[in-house]
Amino acid sequence: MDFKEKVLSIKNIFDGKVVHLDQETVQLPDGNQAQREIIRHPGAVGIIAITDSNKIVLIRQWRAPLNQVTLEIPAGKIELSEQDNPLLTAKRELNEETRFAADDFELVSKFYTSPGFADEIMYLYHAVNLKAVKEELPQDKDEFLELVELSPAEVQKAIENGEICDAKTLMAIMFWQMME
Amino acid sequence: MDFKEKVLSIKNIFDGKVVHLDQETVQLPDGNQAQREIIRHPGAVGIIAITDSNKIVLIRQWRAPLNQVTLEIPAGKIELSEQDNPLLTAKRELNEETRFAADDFELVSKFYTSPGFADEIMYLYHAVNLKAVKEELPQDKDEFLELVELSPAEVQKAIENGEICDAKTLMAIMFWQMME
Repeated sequence: MDFKEKVLSIKNIFDGKVVHLDQETVQLPDGNQAQREIIRHPGAVGIIAITDSNKIVLIRQWRAPLNQVTLEIPAGKIELSEQDNPLLTAKRELNEETRFAADDFELVSKFYTSPGFADEIMYLYHAVNLKAVKEELPQDKDEFLELVELSPAEVQKAIENGEICDAKTLMAIMFWQMME
Repeated sequence: MDFKEKVLSIKNIFDGKVVHLDQETVQLPDGNQAQREIIRHPGAVGIIAITDSNKIVLIRQWRAPLNQVTLEIPAGKIELSEQDNPLLTAKRELNEETRFAADDFELVSKFYTSPGFADEIMYLYHAVNLKAVKEELPQDKDEFLELVELSPAEVQKAIENGEICDAKTLMAIMFWQMME
């Protein structure tokens, strides 16, 4: 069966700082037409950073879409200059958000976060042998972050109380459990 | 530290079939202002459905945002009438997309898919003791689906060749592995 939808026209609805929204008119496999709403996103990285004392490095921050504080792995958007090399994003975000550097980064997984309406891809890296950065990169002015290091038992509590609540962080924790 | 951002104004940018986009002006903890772009989404469910012969039920479909065919667990948006009870969505989507019913559904996880720009929450259910539905619910006219049942080894191949490529399906497979 040929599932391919042919794009007949694209209407740009919004171009923001993070979100770019297009409305596509497509031709379905049966010849009929349908509308597709698509969020274009530059992609992102997340970093599973484990300290020498076997704690996972997490960031406490306000999330406007959820109207709550969350605990998430260090993560961030891929900049235009990093499009061909998300490892650069991983190194930069780990520095900006945690002030850690790592001897080695291993790509553990990559996945689309919401394939029904967004093209956002997330690269998940495991950072090995953490050490303090030599040079601190500037942080985003509109981001207020708190660094937290949690043991496996503390992670379970934070899942239960809802502070850890996003897909990439839950996946990171599952990968961490499987690595042990 | 108080991370809370105070919403000063909300501008509605777009109201579509799936995506609702708001632009918020917020006051940061330091008193400065910032813009937040927020996708409002009704939420969704995904179903880990395992057959008696230990295969996972997946859906092959075209994904317009990714411009490719994917293999994903059965899933779908929560309708307005189901907002207080996503289990209804799980039962309806399992019927519509796979023609399976289940004796029992267990909530395995819930998580936000993209907390940086969207409020989409995903409820992940494990469906136990599959059987054919008695009454087939109508399918969406603009969805063309193919039902697939994969063994654990076949799942690994589909991850490697990129057909399985989204967060909820990868999480579902990790939960399935841990259940075994």
